[in-house]
Amino acid sequence: MSTKRKSSALQENEGVSEPETTSKSAIEAIKNMRHSKPSAAQLVQGILAQDITALSRAITLVESTNPEHLKKANAIIQQCLPHANTSVRIGITGVPGVGKSTFIETFGTYLTSHGKKVAVLAVDPSSTLSRGSILGDKTRMEDLVKDDNAFIRPSASGTSLGGVARKSRETIILCEAAGFDTILIETVGVGQSETAVHSMVDFFLLLKLAGAGDELQGIKRGIMEMADAIVINKADGDNLKNAKIAKVEFNRALHLYPPKASGWQPKVLLASALQNQGIPEVWKLIGDYLSLAKDTHFFDHNRNEQNKFWLLQTIEDRLKSDFYNNPFIKTELKIQLERIENGETSPFAAAELLLGLK
Amino acid sequence: MSTKRKSSALQENEGVSEPETTSKSAIEAIKNMRHSKPSAAQLVQGILAQDITALSRAITLVESTNPEHLKKANAIIQQCLPHANTSVRIGITGVPGVGKSTFIETFGTYLTSHGKKVAVLAVDPSSTLSRGSILGDKTRMEDLVKDDNAFIRPSASGTSLGGVARKSRETIILCEAAGFDTILIETVGVGQSETAVHSMVDFFLLLKLAGAGDELQGIKRGIMEMADAIVINKADGDNLKNAKIAKVEFNRALHLYPPKASGWQPKVLLASALQNQGIPEVWKLIGDYLSLAKDTHFFDHNRNEQNKFWLLQTIEDRLKSDFYNNPFIKTELKIQLERIENGETSPFAAAELLLGLK
Repeated sequence: MSTKRKSSALQENEGVSEPETTSKSAIEAIKNMRHSKPSAAQLVQGILAQDITALSRAITLVESTNPEHLKKANAIIQQCLPHANTSVRIGITGVPGVGKSTFIETFGTYLTSHGKKVAVLAVDPSSTLSRGSILGDKTRMEDLVKDDNAFIRPSASGTSLGGVARKSRETIILCEAAGFDTILIETVGVGQSETAVHSMVDFFLLLKLAGAGDELQGIKRGIMEMADAIVINKADGDNLKNAKIAKVEFNRALHLYPPKASGWQPKVLLASALQNQGIPEVWKLIGDYLSLAKDTHFFDHNRNEQNKFWLLQTIEDRLKSDFYNNPFIKTELKIQLERIENGETSPFAAAELLLGLK
Repeated sequence: MSTKRKSSALQENEGVSEPETTSKSAIEAIKNMRHSKPSAAQLVQGILAQDITALSRAITLVESTNPEHLKKANAIIQQCLPHANTSVRIGITGVPGVGKSTFIETFGTYLTSHGKKVAVLAVDPSSTLSRGSILGDKTRMEDLVKDDNAFIRPSASGTSLGGVARKSRETIILCEAAGFDTILIETVGVGQSETAVHSMVDFFLLLKLAGAGDELQGIKRGIMEMADAIVINKADGDNLKNAKIAKVEFNRALHLYPPKASGWQPKVLLASALQNQGIPEVWKLIGDYLSLAKDTHFFDHNRNEQNKFWLLQTIEDRLKSDFYNNPFIKTELKIQLERIENGETSPFAAAELLLGLK
């Protein structure tokens, strides 16, 4: 369905015979390429020219922990900023097994076939440990990965959700400057990552299954309250009847929540990503939301509020990481935790002492 | 029901004729009293001697925003610490109207009549604005307020929940050192204050009404998950039948949650604080929990974990308040927020700039 296709890395091609010896000049060439460090200005130029290699390199700088890289990343973001803010940002969440990858594959391909340029990002703080529980395996999006109008980037790794989320948010800006007009941000339906993603998107889409029994989970963690739409996936074959019943139930549950600040009444849709059914309806619904939100100026207001939130969030994350990464603090924190455990000091006295070392 | 009674401030006494002129010596005496500032050591001595005036004064220091007072408060807490940790700490929450004040009045009076010394505290960050939505009106606990074995302290005021919660937690230590063996900590059933209270108590009690229709709220905000017991209050008269039905429903809902780290299966009880029914059963249930938690060492483990949590919480609150209270930051923050609003800078660049002023 995509307009252009690259040959897949997964596709088996006819074998070529190995070169006789490893070429010294080839090794040199590779080394040079690896060592070439384009300047911030060069990368910005590349990004604005929609060069995917420049975009990828800039994102790698954003994701780095090297202070030099971060400085360069900040310069790049600052220069990309006037060219950003131009896309629709859509958050997509759902518990494992709900079919997120297939949905993004089908939905993303639908969008590119309608002239959109789609960037797919992920926020998954667990990925440091599990190395890619989402989007790690690009083979699950076989069409989209070959699509010239799509760009897929797995989750940054990091120890804190705050850090991972910040990197994703900066990546959005770079993708927008590189001409991507639709940003899909996937997250897993566990933990606090939904809240982080909700705070960086215009529209929040919750994927559900009929009769999966995770309704309580969704209500409990406030995810259903954040949703602008619930899409019941795998609504096909024998499952269709149950999906229709679930649609009624979710609609009823959604009406229990107070009205949204946007004035939007969240909707429930049925879809089958695998059978490619119900996908245009999802995009139409998002369009309806955007019309409303732009008419009422909620769209801009919301992005502004999100920016302010991220300012404070970034500051607070940095205050904490600067403190806890201080080697003196690290050593003394261990001692104080032991003293608290032994009842030799109070949490407050220990905090005073540690803050005194700042 | 209480063992001793003071005359109530609310009680109308026969009038006494006014003195003819204001006595200069009396004014001097009042001034001196007001200006007498007992030392930290004197206050500690008073607290350990179970002097309520000393306890109240120390709590006022804890609640102060004056750095000198806080320094003194820290010294007092440090010296009280070896005498603290001796009580049972019980959190009590429920939405407005559920009858928290009446329940605490009846439950507290039951406890003091059984030889307990009861301190009643409140955590209510909204009280800065509403000035005492809970415990502000001590007249709602008319018996308990006159009870020599009870001490009631309304919520500290403050702009942040973190600050209010910290003050309450330090107040617990002072109350324990002053010989109070049962601490009841009330909070309102709205916002994040339940989580804060949950992190400072041994047992968390959720008050509910039959058929109040706030079940979804409780599940949604994770309060039901934190509860060690649900007490359905106002289970009397015509309401008793509904309360019994609600008991079955809440029991079923509680079984949907994963087992607690304590190994305790939360229970649902019926009570009528107004009719003084079901109160001994609540205390017996708490006793059962404590036996279990002490046998399995969960009790100590949990307090240790809470202490560690509070160490980190205190540090992080202070890092933030130090930063945002810096006058240079205050001025520049306003400018940067405006620049973000006008799209002239990114949240990240603004954060960098502000952090550079630290």
